[in-house]
Amino acid sequence: MAKNITTRAEDYSKWYNELVIKADLAENSGVRGCMVIKPYGFAIWERMQAELDRMFKETGHQNAYFPLFIPKSYFSKEASHVDGFAKECAVVTHYRLKNAEDGSGIVVDPDAKLEEELIVRPTSETIIWDTYRKWIQSYRDLPLLINQWANVVRWEMRTRLFLRTAEFLWQEGHTAHATKNEAIAEAEQMMNIYAEFSENYLAIPVLKGTKTESERFAGALETYCIEALMQDGKALQAGTSHFLGQNFAKAFDVKFAAKDGKLDYVWATSWGVSTRLMGALIMTHSDDNGLVLPPNLAPDQVVIVPIYRKEEEFEKVNEVALELVKKLRSNGIRVKYDNRDTHKPGWKFNEYELKGVPVRIAIGPKDVEKGTVEMARRDTLTKEFVSNENAVSKVLSLMEEIQANLYTKASSYRSEHTTEVASYEEFKEVLEGKGGFILAHWDGTPETEERIKNETKATIRCIPLEGDNTPGSCIITGKPSERKVVFAKAY
Amino acid sequence: MAKNITTRAEDYSKWYNELVIKADLAENSGVRGCMVIKPYGFAIWERMQAELDRMFKETGHQNAYFPLFIPKSYFSKEASHVDGFAKECAVVTHYRLKNAEDGSGIVVDPDAKLEEELIVRPTSETIIWDTYRKWIQSYRDLPLLINQWANVVRWEMRTRLFLRTAEFLWQEGHTAHATKNEAIAEAEQMMNIYAEFSENYLAIPVLKGTKTESERFAGALETYCIEALMQDGKALQAGTSHFLGQNFAKAFDVKFAAKDGKLDYVWATSWGVSTRLMGALIMTHSDDNGLVLPPNLAPDQVVIVPIYRKEEEFEKVNEVALELVKKLRSNGIRVKYDNRDTHKPGWKFNEYELKGVPVRIAIGPKDVEKGTVEMARRDTLTKEFVSNENAVSKVLSLMEEIQANLYTKASSYRSEHTTEVASYEEFKEVLEGKGGFILAHWDGTPETEERIKNETKATIRCIPLEGDNTPGSCIITGKPSERKVVFAKAY
Repeated sequence: MAKNITTRAEDYSKWYNELVIKADLAENSGVRGCMVIKPYGFAIWERMQAELDRMFKETGHQNAYFPLFIPKSYFSKEASHVDGFAKECAVVTHYRLKNAEDGSGIVVDPDAKLEEELIVRPTSETIIWDTYRKWIQSYRDLPLLINQWANVVRWEMRTRLFLRTAEFLWQEGHTAHATKNEAIAEAEQMMNIYAEFSENYLAIPVLKGTKTESERFAGALETYCIEALMQDGKALQAGTSHFLGQNFAKAFDVKFAAKDGKLDYVWATSWGVSTRLMGALIMTHSDDNGLVLPPNLAPDQVVIVPIYRKEEEFEKVNEVALELVKKLRSNGIRVKYDNRDTHKPGWKFNEYELKGVPVRIAIGPKDVEKGTVEMARRDTLTKEFVSNENAVSKVLSLMEEIQANLYTKASSYRSEHTTEVASYEEFKEVLEGKGGFILAHWDGTPETEERIKNETKATIRCIPLEGDNTPGSCIITGKPSERKVVFAKAY
Repeated sequence: MAKNITTRAEDYSKWYNELVIKADLAENSGVRGCMVIKPYGFAIWERMQAELDRMFKETGHQNAYFPLFIPKSYFSKEASHVDGFAKECAVVTHYRLKNAEDGSGIVVDPDAKLEEELIVRPTSETIIWDTYRKWIQSYRDLPLLINQWANVVRWEMRTRLFLRTAEFLWQEGHTAHATKNEAIAEAEQMMNIYAEFSENYLAIPVLKGTKTESERFAGALETYCIEALMQDGKALQAGTSHFLGQNFAKAFDVKFAAKDGKLDYVWATSWGVSTRLMGALIMTHSDDNGLVLPPNLAPDQVVIVPIYRKEEEFEKVNEVALELVKKLRSNGIRVKYDNRDTHKPGWKFNEYELKGVPVRIAIGPKDVEKGTVEMARRDTLTKEFVSNENAVSKVLSLMEEIQANLYTKASSYRSEHTTEVASYEEFKEVLEGKGGFILAHWDGTPETEERIKNETKATIRCIPLEGDNTPGSCIITGKPSERKVVFAKAY
């Protein structure tokens, strides 16, 4: 087979970039830091959206849409929020272009300066809470459970396709509650939904936990997260859910009358996942031959390639193939039948391997004679002959097997790359060795966290909500530690 | 019943604005010209999106995503395009805010000025054709059939919810073809899909036609459109599909090698519908009691309201209601069961009338005894008792009847408000009288079109593709006219 891409062992980062391009997922655009999501990549994102959207709606959330622009003054109302986002935002200052008077082309019209600058939303808490003030008067209006699918912009200096781009697509949930406990329960529920989605659809095992103070969302009292581990031993934050307390309600004066008539500020959460999940999906399962997709998210779960030389061969093969396409579709399988005569079978095999289609079926004249088809699994790169009559049931069972196998492989990798360490020496040794998640005692101070980050580039990914919670002593200061926390280098 | 809103007769424009707000569809935001689409309004838009998206995919289109920002220089590459959009666009000039040195708050950081300004996309031809240059080399890459769901920004000075907003949501199709005829066929196909969607889902009859040169999209050789008529006699352009010739291919140097190896520029189309369709939907069917929704797009097709005084009554009524909800849902009907005890039945009746739910079912203790339910149609405001056992089949037939009735009503209105005129006098009389579509002969010159527009505010909505195409003489100049064209005042 023709070599498509740099191998992971050669250069993991290069492998990722080449894979994203060659599997037709996305590419860089002419606009600094902004990507083009190509049809194949977008089809995967659409499947993610559909499943998440269903899960949100099943838990009582509704979609709505809020403005792209945020007036500068809104931004300043929540102090830590503005600190978090002001340094990297796109600012609209004018509303017109005109022809330059010297004929040098088209220029910004200085007469069309906005009275107040508008920020392209990096996240929508401020514009949404400005709106919630009008929507919430009494406990009867609560809880308010809203989600938005949108594009957002953060002016990142170093960008990478899907992982870190100036513009990205995401969903942002923004909910309002009458009590602190309800809001905390909502934030936890959404973290759990993200984890469920990640495990059942992306086939990515995740750690659930909370962020340290220094890693929290700007304006949150608590940030819940799910953390995944990539094949190069680096962690990737796959979703966050924030308990915002009454910070935004106070900043935007959103009060409600309780049943007893007393006025109080509303309690808030926000939560989001983005096209970054595409990066996590790619890096978790793919191999040196290209993308590997879990069947639950693959735009095409099966591709059928006819093999023939002469026209009469094609007719026989085509008949069997079309019959199989029909049967598979009626069983809910997403099938692509690639009968193009502009490309050879070998080229197609290579193409669908690169694009991670879970099952490839080849049918040639000999197969037709024998009443069999050849089935190839993308995850294991194994092939077998299956009788025509068993083809549908085999595909159906393969869908489950492949989905489960990808999850199991990723879990095994994670187990092998999760290490508990007792000293800073050991910590550094593991970090520079196999990498992965490192569980270590930490004294709970930002100073120690900062020191470790500066010296090793490892950050605290989360304080886990599950697993061993025995107290101990910090690997740096020896001071008391409530439980081991999870360190890693991260995307 | 409590009066909810201004009547159409009193003030049509006020009626519309109040209806949009009170039916919880949308509201103005704190950002000039930008709306908030509320959950109920967004649920209708989501249904529109789902049907359109299916229709696009069934005709071979794929979704993708292109950057929000367009470098200023791209804009200038197609001359008429920049003329069309430069006067009303949001311009990003900086990428950072900072704290003012005098402590006066947060300000734009002058050190973070972009080398080249970025325009927030008013439409994406330029950024997309810059990308297509990389995607298209040979006839094998064609046709390229891509659609994007996105937000766009046009800095309109006078805005109205859904009808004209600075930011709006839309879909924009951008296709590339090997031949002129293929591109024209695509542009026509998409106009036909829009017309089909409009008639079968929105229940809005539309005229299909082409725009005059002065009304064409900036950069198009031909603009196809669908034109609808609102209840105040004004027209609304509900969708457009453009044949762009080779204009953008030339501007962005997109050539392909034909089968014979010769290089040629690619032929293009673009086509779009937007949240403006929400305005068309509202204005076509709604009445003085509020919104009226066609069942094919209503988020809730049926609402069930239990009527009871005592708890034991509720138990009986609730049992019957829950059973009906179950049966309706298993028949694919979208049902809302409003058993809230915080609101009285009268309040609920009013609310769902205002929100345009097609069928309202009330069940009280007497109904339970008699084995009946009370069914009210939103379109005719009529009620009848239906036996429990016939309830599901009655709802199913009502869905079709209501959908058809709304279309018929709108068609009758349009017929009554379509007038052929033989003179300019008559033209002005009809225009200032009942309004509507006016068919008149026109000499085909921009001068005559301009004169009529200046003197009467009526524009040529389209040169129709169907109907009477007898030649005649222009009502203004007496010069030859190929066929009558359609004039109206328009949104």
